[in-house]
Amino acid sequence: MTRPAYVVDTGQIGVGVNLAPYIAACEQVLLDAGLKIQLHPNGTAIEGEWEPVFQAIEACHTAVHTMGCSRIFTTVKVNTRTDRDQTLEEKVASVEVLLQDLQEGGQ
Amino acid sequence: MTRPAYVVDTGQIGVGVNLAPYIAACEQVLLDAGLKIQLHPNGTAIEGEWEPVFQAIEACHTAVHTMGCSRIFTTVKVNTRTDRDQTLEEKVASVEVLLQDLQEGGQ
Amino acid sequence: MTRPAYVVDTGQIGVGVNLAPYIAACEQVLLDAGLKIQLHPNGTAIEGEWEPVFQAIEACHTAVHTMGCSRIFTTVKVNTRTDRDQTLEEKVASVEVLLQDLQEGGQ
Amino acid sequence: MTRPAYVVDTGQIGVGVNLAPYIAACEQVLLDAGLKIQLHPNGTAIEGEWEPVFQAIEACHTAVHTMGCSRIFTTVKVNTRTDRDQTLEEKVASVEVLLQDLQEGGQ
Repeated sequence: MTRPAYVVDTGQIGVGVNLAPYIAACEQVLLDAGLKIQLHPNGTAIEGEWEPVFQAIEACHTAVHTMGCSRIFTTVKVNTRTDRDQTLEEKVASVEVLLQDLQEGGQ
Repeated sequence: MTRPAYVVDTGQIGVGVNLAPYIAACEQVLLDAGLKIQLHPNGTAIEGEWEPVFQAIEACHTAVHTMGCSRIFTTVKVNTRTDRDQTLEEKVASVEVLLQDLQEGGQ
Repeated sequence: MTRPAYVVDTGQIGVGVNLAPYIAACEQVLLDAGLKIQLHPNGTAIEGEWEPVFQAIEACHTAVHTMGCSRIFTTVKVNTRTDRDQTLEEKVASVEVLLQDLQEGGQ
Repeated sequence: MTRPAYVVDTGQIGVGVNLAPYIAACEQVLLDAGLKIQLHPNGTAIEGEWEPVFQAIEACHTAVHTMGCSRIFTTVKVNTRTDRDQTLEEKVASVEVLLQDLQEGGQ
């Protein structure tokens, strides 16, 4: 078995209507942890090994609690695979190539 | 109460190691439904009204079942707000501005 | 292709530390819609057809907005399968039987 | 700030139509880790501290990869709060009491 490749998607939800300050703080925590991240409209894609990724997500919770938010929900999607490594960019590219084919085939 | 603005994030998981063909088919279904979408490494952000969005996600399930996949899991994050409209681009921009501030403040 | 069986899991997250009143209101909305539901610590399992299920989840959002919550996040896990029907109880039972076997085999 | 209370919900999705053997193996891993768990139709509620919980979820991925599944998706909902501790049972009970009130008030 090869070493699993980890791709994680996370989205923090805290108390309040304006969540952007919490999310910006989390982005900073993830960057400070040296992780490769990609912000999208409903969360943040993270590429990294299991332990540093989940330590960093815990640090996000601590940061948001420290900002005065007493209750936090985070949803995480974790994808590991042992057949091959796949970066964040490759995940998107593999779909876009096929979508291009579909659209050309449909003309 | 103003009309709620809907932002939805969805990710299909079917049976198989190579999921890209299923995801490409779903992207095409969502585009054919006239929805505004944005593919990211772990899913697809969708902007639209409740009924057309969830009809389109059901059509994604039908498409993937038709491709021979007998069991499908989809995770959906739905965000509605009545205080103001917010596009996919605005959601990302509101965080990026604050992150920029954090990084300049930290220098 | 047989008719897909739908199993849905949903969890509402609104603004506020005490979410129980919102969740109770949603349970009532789901029951009023005639759906089979099962409350668990982090959400509610729902068994039903696609359209009534997602109409009811939209009605939950409306109910919670009406209670004064201007921003709501819901996470939904949808599972459809065409190979056979499976109730909420069967999903749990199929795992418990195997877990029992594992534990007896491990003695 | 008091110590945050952690409640986590997790659901593994591997490759294959019959997922029950994978889920049973994960239940056993979580029990072997000494965690308090509660199986429900669409996942497993876990009560515990951050580090042992996420180490155990990583051990679930390793177990399922070892069973021959080369690609695994897990969805995790994490809820931390600093205002008070709340067990899995208390989370359900706090909603059920209010639902009872709603139903009696509605008569």
